[in-house]
Amino acid sequence: MGQLSVVIILFTFIRFFIFSNGGSLSESPHQGDYDKDKRLRKKQSSILRSSPPMPARSILARTYYNVETHPPESLDWLNVLVAQTVSQFREDARSNNNILHTLDKILNGDSLPSFLDTVHVTELDIGEEFPIFSNCKVFPCEDDPGRLEARIEVDLADSITLGIDTRLLLNYPTPLLAILPVSLSVSIVRFSGQLTMSLKTTPPSSNSDRKTSLTFSFAPDYRLEFSIRSLVGSRSRLQNLPKISQLVESQIRKWFVERCVQPRFQEIQLASIWPRRKNTREAFSSRNN
Amino acid sequence: MGQLSVVIILFTFIRFFIFSNGGSLSESPHQGDYDKDKRLRKKQSSILRSSPPMPARSILARTYYNVETHPPESLDWLNVLVAQTVSQFREDARSNNNILHTLDKILNGDSLPSFLDTVHVTELDIGEEFPIFSNCKVFPCEDDPGRLEARIEVDLADSITLGIDTRLLLNYPTPLLAILPVSLSVSIVRFSGQLTMSLKTTPPSSNSDRKTSLTFSFAPDYRLEFSIRSLVGSRSRLQNLPKISQLVESQIRKWFVERCVQPRFQEIQLASIWPRRKNTREAFSSRNN
Repeated sequence: MGQLSVVIILFTFIRFFIFSNGGSLSESPHQGDYDKDKRLRKKQSSILRSSPPMPARSILARTYYNVETHPPESLDWLNVLVAQTVSQFREDARSNNNILHTLDKILNGDSLPSFLDTVHVTELDIGEEFPIFSNCKVFPCEDDPGRLEARIEVDLADSITLGIDTRLLLNYPTPLLAILPVSLSVSIVRFSGQLTMSLKTTPPSSNSDRKTSLTFSFAPDYRLEFSIRSLVGSRSRLQNLPKISQLVESQIRKWFVERCVQPRFQEIQLASIWPRRKNTREAFSSRNN
Repeated sequence: MGQLSVVIILFTFIRFFIFSNGGSLSESPHQGDYDKDKRLRKKQSSILRSSPPMPARSILARTYYNVETHPPESLDWLNVLVAQTVSQFREDARSNNNILHTLDKILNGDSLPSFLDTVHVTELDIGEEFPIFSNCKVFPCEDDPGRLEARIEVDLADSITLGIDTRLLLNYPTPLLAILPVSLSVSIVRFSGQLTMSLKTTPPSSNSDRKTSLTFSFAPDYRLEFSIRSLVGSRSRLQNLPKISQLVESQIRKWFVERCVQPRFQEIQLASIWPRRKNTREAFSSRNN
């Protein structure tokens, strides 16, 4: 009897003292939820204060980096990880001749001009050395001091070769009047340069959200060395015409300079983590097309 | 007349000496293509020699990294870049209260038990400091010497706070018998530990391609400090019950240990660059479901 009274007293205490009355919720839960939602929305601005974007100066101060005095850092650990990734990439490229099929599609794509016969890959070497990164240093961006960029020296001594075989078709004055066999082999034997990496943010506008992208480019004093062999004609083959080597080399250099050499840069869009209604819509519309 | 004869001689020379006869292609171009395709397929294996996967030893030798003697490297430049990314992430999280909406969805998701009322976020601080990485070193993986891993020390002293308000509903013996208001605020004030990162490859099997993933985990001697405040009951609020703090802290620690602390690790699948027919199929089937 004594135990029961203790339990009853304890229950009464808990019921009326600690717990609040359940009635308040059961009366009109939806109205209550609605009110709470409204209250929540009003309060949201105070829950999470929106501070201005942090300037580069504060970021440098909070990471204890002084751009004036900090010595360049070595990147030996990064070289090992990049080498592992590249080694993995090469295995993937070699398995099932993936890279040959991909190259075949690219070389014989829609843009193949009518005077060119099918292009065959005769030689392919994707190399076995790895890029060596060194002397990494952070600087404020020259054309936008609010941005920070990392400058890294890159060096690659390898032999990356692509050899192709094709035939030039002379279609004038009559179709297939003559055929000129051409063999070409291009090797990249050395690349060194200064890589600049930075994060770029475009502020949100009326028709787009804020976008973050990783940009990279090479300084204009890069060094790119080729070894080019050419073989033209069928009966007495003309070997290693210097004109053809120069033409191919200048085309590759132009292609590279137009894409990756300062003031031009490559921009890789980084996906925003926050799911956005607009992105969903775009995905749906592209799926229907 | 002399000029014309020179042109004719030159044309004849080029036509018969350098160019081959167009007839060979026009006779049966498809048959020729087919033969060439067959020849190409036979030759593919010789064009691109498939070398065995490069062992960790060779990768270390080619990147000039001696695991025995190499000193740990500083990562100050990485700290700056990570800080920029985190700062960007925080801006994204704050804009349009993205993080509040996401948290609201997670906290009030399908798994909300019946004895819990709607959870409201009352306090949120996503911090303003940045993680500091240091002393990076490459080691061979302990349980797989063929793999390499990078070990990095991480330190974060910040105040990352989440405060919530909810009500425990006592539905027994009758529904909504009583309601117990609960307020809880959890802050992470310090984290330090050793991060291990590595690339892991699963060899290709009959029903799956080779898969590469980035794994990361923390050493068991990590340090994680909390500050937890609780507020239970309605009339005489019981503040900072040590039992509740301990319960919450042990739950968070358990969550973390079960996911990221050695021998457990997180694995992020890396996409293969080579387009594969199987991947396409999977994408189609999931789209139809």
